[in-house]
Amino acid sequence: MTDRRITPEPLTAEAFAPWGELLEATGEFRLINEGWCQRHNDRAKLDFGPEGRAGISVFSARPRSLPYEFRLIERHPEGSQAFIPMSEHGFLIIVSDGPEAKPRAFLSAPGQAINFHRGTWHGVLTPLQAPGLFAVVDRIGPTPNLEEFTYDQPFTVIAPES
Amino acid sequence: MTDRRITPEPLTAEAFAPWGELLEATGEFRLINEGWCQRHNDRAKLDFGPEGRAGISVFSARPRSLPYEFRLIERHPEGSQAFIPMSEHGFLIIVSDGPEAKPRAFLSAPGQAINFHRGTWHGVLTPLQAPGLFAVVDRIGPTPNLEEFTYDQPFTVIAPES
Repeated sequence: MTDRRITPEPLTAEAFAPWGELLEATGEFRLINEGWCQRHNDRAKLDFGPEGRAGISVFSARPRSLPYEFRLIERHPEGSQAFIPMSEHGFLIIVSDGPEAKPRAFLSAPGQAINFHRGTWHGVLTPLQAPGLFAVVDRIGPTPNLEEFTYDQPFTVIAPES
Repeated sequence: MTDRRITPEPLTAEAFAPWGELLEATGEFRLINEGWCQRHNDRAKLDFGPEGRAGISVFSARPRSLPYEFRLIERHPEGSQAFIPMSEHGFLIIVSDGPEAKPRAFLSAPGQAINFHRGTWHGVLTPLQAPGLFAVVDRIGPTPNLEEFTYDQPFTVIAPES
């Protein structure tokens, strides 16, 4: 891989489908609460493995900026992992098909959350604005659930052309 | 009950404890992602009953304003229900110890999410600002999971004194 620059793509359900789900208030819904609320039902493919259970944690991450250089990717073999921004900011999402592959990057829009399928290689949480606050729905369990891989050379996510 | 006005209280973990958990980035954490992120781990008591599983849905609710009049409360006998605001706005939370009790109300602060314990009587989702967008972690299952109760006379949540 000679070109180690990555241009982030807009986050869409279709483009992101190989790695997980886009969670947002679009498409089908059920009207609840006497008509005051739209329920977009059960949007994530959750999987907490044979020994795990669902948990909700709160992540507070320091914002990054573009260009963003990284070498580390990670995956959770025992469970899916959903990232729900607790602010109206998009964030940077990096995925990979594994150590041999060139990563891809997405920029989410405000109002979009994501769920990574169990075992998906991804970059660490990278908000681009404060507060960098996320609710995370992932596997709580008694056995290890983290694999990391460090590329020999860094990749750089560059700002998309405006 | 002659006084049907309810003054909302600030949302704190202690005050809310009988009905659920406050989910926020305070207290103990584990430093992850090479030091860039604080993980406040496993903050909610999730319970999806014998036949249910966890799901993530997206709720889009129309904002209300104070004073807010209501007669309806509801509960989910088969599962807990977490509300994670996808914006930096507090929202109105109404809980009750049941049809015979006077409800109580809380106002959350930006950066706060909540989880209702399985079976907790609560008001419907009441954001006070747009966009009224929430990720909801609750029970997905094959059997009914909603009980509603309508008070004969309305209660009114009034604005706290400033």
